[in-house]
Amino acid sequence: MTKIVIVGGVAGGASAAARARRLSEDAQIIMFERGPFVSFANCGLPYHIGGDIQERSKLLLQTPESFLARFNVDVRVMNEVHSINRQAKTITVKNLLDGSEYQESYDYLLLSPGAGPIVPAIPGIDNPLTHSLRNIPDMDRIINTLQSKQTKHATVVGGGFIGLEMMEAFHQLGIKTSVIEMANQVMTPMDKEMAGFAHAEIRAHGIDLRLNTALSAVEYIETDDTRELSLTLSNGEQLNTDILIMAIGVRPETKLAQEAGLKIGELGGIWTNPSMQTSDPSIYAVGDAIEEQDFVTGAATLVPLAGPANRQGRMAADNMLGRNETYQGTQGTAICKIFDLAVASTGKNEKQLKREGIAYEKVFVHTASHASYYPGAETVSFKLLFDPTTGKIFGAQAAGKDGVDKRIDIMAVAQRAGMTVDQLQHLELTYAPPYGSAKDVINQAAFVANNIIKGDATPIHFDEIESLTDNQLLLDVRNPGERANGNHLAGDINIPVDQLRHRMDELPKDKEIVIYCQVGLRGNVAYRQLVNNGYKARNLIGGFRTYQFAKA
Amino acid sequence: MTKIVIVGGVAGGASAAARARRLSEDAQIIMFERGPFVSFANCGLPYHIGGDIQERSKLLLQTPESFLARFNVDVRVMNEVHSINRQAKTITVKNLLDGSEYQESYDYLLLSPGAGPIVPAIPGIDNPLTHSLRNIPDMDRIINTLQSKQTKHATVVGGGFIGLEMMEAFHQLGIKTSVIEMANQVMTPMDKEMAGFAHAEIRAHGIDLRLNTALSAVEYIETDDTRELSLTLSNGEQLNTDILIMAIGVRPETKLAQEAGLKIGELGGIWTNPSMQTSDPSIYAVGDAIEEQDFVTGAATLVPLAGPANRQGRMAADNMLGRNETYQGTQGTAICKIFDLAVASTGKNEKQLKREGIAYEKVFVHTASHASYYPGAETVSFKLLFDPTTGKIFGAQAAGKDGVDKRIDIMAVAQRAGMTVDQLQHLELTYAPPYGSAKDVINQAAFVANNIIKGDATPIHFDEIESLTDNQLLLDVRNPGERANGNHLAGDINIPVDQLRHRMDELPKDKEIVIYCQVGLRGNVAYRQLVNNGYKARNLIGGFRTYQFAKA
Repeated sequence: MTKIVIVGGVAGGASAAARARRLSEDAQIIMFERGPFVSFANCGLPYHIGGDIQERSKLLLQTPESFLARFNVDVRVMNEVHSINRQAKTITVKNLLDGSEYQESYDYLLLSPGAGPIVPAIPGIDNPLTHSLRNIPDMDRIINTLQSKQTKHATVVGGGFIGLEMMEAFHQLGIKTSVIEMANQVMTPMDKEMAGFAHAEIRAHGIDLRLNTALSAVEYIETDDTRELSLTLSNGEQLNTDILIMAIGVRPETKLAQEAGLKIGELGGIWTNPSMQTSDPSIYAVGDAIEEQDFVTGAATLVPLAGPANRQGRMAADNMLGRNETYQGTQGTAICKIFDLAVASTGKNEKQLKREGIAYEKVFVHTASHASYYPGAETVSFKLLFDPTTGKIFGAQAAGKDGVDKRIDIMAVAQRAGMTVDQLQHLELTYAPPYGSAKDVINQAAFVANNIIKGDATPIHFDEIESLTDNQLLLDVRNPGERANGNHLAGDINIPVDQLRHRMDELPKDKEIVIYCQVGLRGNVAYRQLVNNGYKARNLIGGFRTYQFAKA
Repeated sequence: MTKIVIVGGVAGGASAAARARRLSEDAQIIMFERGPFVSFANCGLPYHIGGDIQERSKLLLQTPESFLARFNVDVRVMNEVHSINRQAKTITVKNLLDGSEYQESYDYLLLSPGAGPIVPAIPGIDNPLTHSLRNIPDMDRIINTLQSKQTKHATVVGGGFIGLEMMEAFHQLGIKTSVIEMANQVMTPMDKEMAGFAHAEIRAHGIDLRLNTALSAVEYIETDDTRELSLTLSNGEQLNTDILIMAIGVRPETKLAQEAGLKIGELGGIWTNPSMQTSDPSIYAVGDAIEEQDFVTGAATLVPLAGPANRQGRMAADNMLGRNETYQGTQGTAICKIFDLAVASTGKNEKQLKREGIAYEKVFVHTASHASYYPGAETVSFKLLFDPTTGKIFGAQAAGKDGVDKRIDIMAVAQRAGMTVDQLQHLELTYAPPYGSAKDVINQAAFVANNIIKGDATPIHFDEIESLTDNQLLLDVRNPGERANGNHLAGDINIPVDQLRHRMDELPKDKEIVIYCQVGLRGNVAYRQLVNNGYKARNLIGGFRTYQFAKA
């Protein structure tokens, strides 16, 4: 009889417990959770606060009782594992309800403690109106604060998933909201120009978004009638607020592992091999607490997301019970709802590729989510990063109000399968007017990428437009009406693409013509005309729309 | 200077013309179209009739004038190509407006004539109230019929894409509608049990759906005030109707090719090699008129869909202008909107695999389109067909009200990339509660498939339930409330899964326990319990839901 002890009862731990029981009826399985709940929907917490998920009970996917009945798992909530004795293969547990301590032996131990919110040592941060959000009690405390006082203004520090979801929750409750973000963009998995779509959406909803700004100090002010916070920001500005959410990121919970002498990786997560084993073969670890292998580079990475945690938990159970499953690396596929917009990404972004010195090329397309003549089509803004020589897919990002999840899923599969951008041209995706296009977003991006690889297109990018020289001439091939209200690049000339063939002699042959249109499609038609007529030219990939949102 | 002549100005022809011009500024490009329109949205026609697409002009994507201005293509509508002289490399063209005939030479000829509706030789079928729908004039005639008389009842013969889209259009206009389908299901790319979801949706909207029924004869009855049709059906029944749409399928337009002595394939389409060349290297052919290679089996196939046509057109232009692109085969990825439901498929279905004698296994899952605790989740019913030994993906089908296109696209990519069902387990797809689940539909289907491959699950399928023997015992592990109103299998016993561990001794060890639940998930938990306790058992894959809709 194998005795399996699990530390942490949410995504990875709960998946492991259920899988272990399915594999073995006679294994003894004990799952410890220091909080009061197991297997709760941690990704759903902001949505309950905002009211989208009305019933709190919907967040409680399993209970200790249901786990016992279905999986014969001994679930012990409010029991915190304090230490591991690796020699004796025992753990010491503290019962948080009565304070008693006891020991439990194990054959295999699974660590799934998750990650805790990073709360920096800012003066005054420890006060009753400052919260982070990781679990049900955190959520209950936030709701309690909102109910106990009139909340007119909320501040969220951090523009990641939880920060943006909390921003939306506050907005939905009619609370004016400020978002403070130290970086020059929200959603760091995206590159800045793609985050620009998020910035525009956030600001369009009246959110006070402050980029390049940090929180310096917090003052808690309590009078007879009121309680509020006075925030001091890095730019010296003051901001009065009724509730403060700290959501600047998470840090792997490694205390238990570290004290037990398990190997900790360079990035600060528990080291594991692809079998999910720690440096002690009897101890496995999964989820937000561990370092895993990046799918693209093979380097260690921290990816605190639910999908990998769940699959790793299942796999750890397999291996504890004699299977031989190996984890295939993490792409970091992620998506975030920001009001009506979805932003999503998979694989490496441009910032990472630059940092790691990997040669890459990029393309942008902005294409309808389904046939543009059928109602409800929305623009999908899509970025594809690839190896300019081999066409290997490095990563993809998308933003839009429809079909963003689908396109990034397609890319996540294509990347995992090792496809090249050449192969992406041939993808045969579902098409009927309500669902797609005969040439889908992905096909179109692949066409553009392959045009570059084959030398059929010479790209110029939005980030090069500011540094054009006198030997270059900016040519807008859109119609004059599209240029109204300053919607064009300074110093350009305008010849609509459909007039270009007859007006080509207005262009100089000794300068490089830098062509642009709205999204890059007409620009490509113009580019081909000019080049085939002996001109030097480049086409702005993704067009004016990419340039425009990069500034948002 | 290369002279390219194109026959047919819609999907494949129009794509080829535009691509050819982008590649070569000095090629001469002439595009002939016997109808009055080029590059129209043929997939949008039913949606204009039904009113979803209100403006007819939205269907006209390009005009001869816009093609000339942007691509310098000489578009000649109402000009029908009558014959090809391959020796002289000329064609004879009839101007349908003035009846004149003339010749045109070519260096390369592209045939993109499409496919025409099959109208069987049924007595009386040729009458003013019977229509098929292929192009704008057809659409105009249907709208004209609807406007010229009060239409209380419409009949659609054929339950394929166009038939079902026309059914929905009529329903949307408040017209009572009958659908007559000769087969025992609509949407033949799906297997019958998956088409059951469509049948239920169609009937839920009050449509008179008659399967296993053919049209035998039509009588046109005109009085002073009324015009109507009296239909005689294969079962002897009569049906009076105001308009009849024939949509039983299409047949490749091969007359021109055949008369020119080009090779016609076994299935009746123009033969092409992977470069899109016909048996005459100067003549290319693309789209609905050709036979192409099936991606899974490599055999010839007819796939009259817009996606392949567009990509083939682009590729033919590439090759005519000296590139060397090869078509990578067609999976037949397709989707159809049926009221609120989407049904979609890719690759081979079970009927085809059986017919071709390919050994396969299948799984069904019914899983929420996104986190079930977040509002708006709908069940995705998903079927996966695979090689039981290697795990190679043969095909997939899905039905549901949300996220069906996404799942079939994922499968289309995975199949094209040569992934196995083992690899599908590791797919890392976008997850946030509004968009997906930590274990997506596809991951779940892969888990079930791999359980079967590894011997962790012994499946039984819905189509085996009717033929159980005395040595088998049917066990429902759902809760009693789920069995109400006869919602269970005859002759079963009921032990809820959460009671099974304690009531296992109620079950005989000498019989095979055939377990089922609603979708197969609890059934698997029960299966593992029983097998790990020494029972013989099988689990009904896809559960009661699959069984139920197979009868719809």
